[in-house]
Amino acid sequence: MNYPSRLIEDAVGEISRLPGIGKKTALRLALHLLKRDEQQTTSLADAIVNMRTKTTYCVKCHNIADDQLCNVCSNRNRDHSIICVVVDTRDVLAIEATSQYRGLYHVLGGIISPLEGIGPSDLNIESLLDRTMQREGEDQVQEVILALSPTMEGDTTAFYLQKKLKTIGVRVSTIARGVPIGGDLEYADEITLGRSIVSRVAYD
Amino acid sequence: MNYPSRLIEDAVGEISRLPGIGKKTALRLALHLLKRDEQQTTSLADAIVNMRTKTTYCVKCHNIADDQLCNVCSNRNRDHSIICVVVDTRDVLAIEATSQYRGLYHVLGGIISPLEGIGPSDLNIESLLDRTMQREGEDQVQEVILALSPTMEGDTTAFYLQKKLKTIGVRVSTIARGVPIGGDLEYADEITLGRSIVSRVAYD
Repeated sequence: MNYPSRLIEDAVGEISRLPGIGKKTALRLALHLLKRDEQQTTSLADAIVNMRTKTTYCVKCHNIADDQLCNVCSNRNRDHSIICVVVDTRDVLAIEATSQYRGLYHVLGGIISPLEGIGPSDLNIESLLDRTMQREGEDQVQEVILALSPTMEGDTTAFYLQKKLKTIGVRVSTIARGVPIGGDLEYADEITLGRSIVSRVAYD
Repeated sequence: MNYPSRLIEDAVGEISRLPGIGKKTALRLALHLLKRDEQQTTSLADAIVNMRTKTTYCVKCHNIADDQLCNVCSNRNRDHSIICVVVDTRDVLAIEATSQYRGLYHVLGGIISPLEGIGPSDLNIESLLDRTMQREGEDQVQEVILALSPTMEGDTTAFYLQKKLKTIGVRVSTIARGVPIGGDLEYADEITLGRSIVSRVAYD
């Protein structure tokens, strides 16, 4: 496209490097900023630079934190004997939003994906094993829950972690896969429905 | 949502003020920036601030420009006797992409919308009339083409402009409305198809 100004072209180029944003959307956003107060643009720029340069990660669970420990790890009211393993911060937010989990987290920072060249050593797996192996004190880990997406990569990562964790002798579980609540049986795909029959739950 | 860090919350808040970007998308973009080089974030921030603070507008057609006059207005190879009236820079880019137009533009900067409290005085209409009225020199305007969207607001604005321009005595036209090229007749809506019959074009 033949942009009317080099400044616009630069801005569109930078904005469209964001995932899911093409040149057209980037141009729309750039023109939107041009129409608004200069202050909106500067506060947007400040916010992202501040976030990028000042954000720290929890030394324990690798979640994003304002301090050395994140809100969850530093909260003594939570159950420190359970660790839920997730891929990134978004998963932590999603699980926190359910209010059904009172334990701690461990953020892997990615998923094993041979296609993208991501192996176990690129993820925060070593520190997970270290945390799990600490067998003294009241923070002894009793259970590790794997909350990974039911994809090829997710299953590979889960399999790898499960094997490693089993040798430590901790209980390992995975979140339940099955028919979503509110979902119609006839619209569930075969694999999900099949899995929900195999992993059926007995009434107490 | 319960963000893990105030910095993230600020960034998500600022990003989600952009049109079409909600909290979830904003969080995805923020986490993306966190994963990439710090340099990507700073160059994005610099690009948008530079664009916002340094962009100027063409004194003649109000399009975005790097200089006093935009590329189009300063180009003596273009036909300075025709002005195409559009709402914003995106429309200029869209028309330029067709390579079918060799005249100048006039960017209104918005559209008459009583609902949003935008009246004729909020748009670059006075300067359009001034440009059109200049009846001396070789840049005398012979025709004004209204290239506005076929919406309620677009039609209102076109009606208003047409009345004003008629008093000056310049030829006023509008871009053709009709069945899109490549479109199937049976899928065209009634209003478009009806308009395409009323405004039928005779074979020469």
